[in-house]
Amino acid sequence: MTKKVLVLPGDGIGPEIVGQATRVLDALIENHGLDVTYESALVGGSSYDAHETPLTDEVLTQAKEADAILLGAVGGPKWEQYDISVRPEKALLKLRSELELFGNLRPAILYKQLADASSLKPELVADLDVLIVRELTGGIYFGQPRGIRTLENGERQGFNTYVYSESEVERIAHVAFKAAMLRDKRVCSVDKANVLEATELWREVMERVGKEYPKVELTHMYVDNAAMQLVRAPKQFDVMVTGNMFGDILSDCAAMLTGSIGMLPSASLDANGKGMYEPIHGSAPDIAGQNKANPLATILSVSMLLRHSFGEGALADKIDQAVSKVLDQGYRTGDIHTEGDTLVSTTEMGDAVLKEL
Amino acid sequence: MTKKVLVLPGDGIGPEIVGQATRVLDALIENHGLDVTYESALVGGSSYDAHETPLTDEVLTQAKEADAILLGAVGGPKWEQYDISVRPEKALLKLRSELELFGNLRPAILYKQLADASSLKPELVADLDVLIVRELTGGIYFGQPRGIRTLENGERQGFNTYVYSESEVERIAHVAFKAAMLRDKRVCSVDKANVLEATELWREVMERVGKEYPKVELTHMYVDNAAMQLVRAPKQFDVMVTGNMFGDILSDCAAMLTGSIGMLPSASLDANGKGMYEPIHGSAPDIAGQNKANPLATILSVSMLLRHSFGEGALADKIDQAVSKVLDQGYRTGDIHTEGDTLVSTTEMGDAVLKEL
Ligand SMILES: CC(C)[C@H](C(=O)O)[C@@H](O)C(=O)O
Ligand SMILES: CC(C)[C@H](C(=O)O)[C@@H](O)C(=O)O
Repeated sequence: MTKKVLVLPGDGIGPEIVGQATRVLDALIENHGLDVTYESALVGGSSYDAHETPLTDEVLTQAKEADAILLGAVGGPKWEQYDISVRPEKALLKLRSELELFGNLRPAILYKQLADASSLKPELVADLDVLIVRELTGGIYFGQPRGIRTLENGERQGFNTYVYSESEVERIAHVAFKAAMLRDKRVCSVDKANVLEATELWREVMERVGKEYPKVELTHMYVDNAAMQLVRAPKQFDVMVTGNMFGDILSDCAAMLTGSIGMLPSASLDANGKGMYEPIHGSAPDIAGQNKANPLATILSVSMLLRHSFGEGALADKIDQAVSKVLDQGYRTGDIHTEGDTLVSTTEMGDAVLKEL
Repeated sequence: MTKKVLVLPGDGIGPEIVGQATRVLDALIENHGLDVTYESALVGGSSYDAHETPLTDEVLTQAKEADAILLGAVGGPKWEQYDISVRPEKALLKLRSELELFGNLRPAILYKQLADASSLKPELVADLDVLIVRELTGGIYFGQPRGIRTLENGERQGFNTYVYSESEVERIAHVAFKAAMLRDKRVCSVDKANVLEATELWREVMERVGKEYPKVELTHMYVDNAAMQLVRAPKQFDVMVTGNMFGDILSDCAAMLTGSIGMLPSASLDANGKGMYEPIHGSAPDIAGQNKANPLATILSVSMLLRHSFGEGALADKIDQAVSKVLDQGYRTGDIHTEGDTLVSTTEMGDAVLKEL
């Protein structure tokens, strides 16, 4: 049966980078028998400008009906002064929550061709390959009660609730352990169990689920130490699993260790393997519309989509290899360009990948 | 009037490093007219072993009566399986909260003599000097309600509350802006105002207080981006101010950028300048009792104590200069040792500093 992909280009550089990713999809459909159709819709600030909401009900329904979603990026200064409830980010949060995309996979991989891009000393990050598994639909991002209230003494107080139930921890634990089984079989669970009760329960459940995966080594680390260890010796990690808030921070930190966040895709999965796929970088409004942005993270998001949601590992490998070849050939967009390489535009990078497919 | 210092060596390497710091205090008392007395008491695991509590009421009273507190480090594997309520960390949290030590200053300084110690490329961290100002008695560390409850469906749920009132944000804002006035006059406030209402209010109050310091440039950054920027280009920051939880993570990340956390002191201040001073590193149980630990962070904590609580800037400078000279002379404990330097023990490092005083 033909699979349906909903394509959400979003804001800033979103349309440009997604444009190259859909060219890759087209090529696979036309030349490699991929049985997929896709349609596009507005999301984020561009949806707000058209419909006064960052996510219309119609697009939400389309997203629910699709078999997978490919997202560019949302946000920009234009919408930053708006109320939290209608900001572009809200669309992301709503898609994650309404589609129950609780399992966020954020690989931090340093391509050997880009070893110099890291701010860390080369020997500390050469061949870095860490997978951060972040819980994406719970924790303090969605906990109730929340808001800003006025106290009896007249001053205001802002409050949020950090909350995890056992079943929420269990399901993300399984995601992490299963991922580790396909890798180096080591899971490091990150919490703040010495201070936060919510993460004390998290640790207990991780231990319990870990018993079902006797081949996987499970360790625990406090979040402050995890941030230190990522900077000190990131290669010590295989899979790191953590809650929504800590995952937000640590995955960005880990991504930046590679020095090439323009290269990193991500997947947000539900219990059945349906997912939303997106580059981890933002909408980069400063270079939007200039044909400068790096489309590779979005193209690699297509690879993750094919692998995780459609079981098309062979086609995913094809994309990964094409990207690797293009790097070998020295093609670089501005974000990863260094002297001696060939500086290319967004579309030229797309051309180069297509040629290798 | 003679000032009173309460000395709390704590666990692991605590007694060894504090031992060198009190030698420095002794020297200043004997030879430089410092009018201070001090007494020592148990805290953390060593207090638990003796009294079944990490902080006795008696020691808490001593701490309240003292003009300043010098702490070594607490914790160790021995006490890790105990209940959160009696773990060594609890003593720290209780001291902070009972003494209202809300203003946590964590400098991340890279000594030019130790430039190679960083895991970052030298040019990115040379002369790094960032001050993290962390709110220390509020936020999710102390928010109520908190705990682990059983839901109607029988599963358990862990929860904590992230909460800040306007007055709590105001007072830490003043600490940050005042610190910036003595430095490069730039404050970056870190929040997650695109998701968390508690930090939306935080941002608003920062803006308001910032108006009282027109000479200071105030910027805002989301915590995930802040973690990235610290790794990418840490020298862009002067003062960073943030809440308790984010501050825990970012200050450790920033400290690790220097590659020499054995060198970094910290101060936790109340509204009147009374403070608790401690190295930011932990109790390092693996090398405890071996005369190997680096005492410099604790000695530099004495310097901060003299400067911030006792107004003894000249004596503080003396300590700082002595430490710098000792580094110039090539003395290094194991944690900062590289080929060509002189490897020294904890006590030998103390000797070297005393000689320079
Ligand atoms: C845009 C924002 C709401 C989002 C998050 O915090 O989850 C982003 O930082 C991310 O990590 O995908
Ligand atoms: C020991 C722990 C409770 C403490 C904290 O989280 O505040 C420590 O990590 C610190 O930063 O001083």
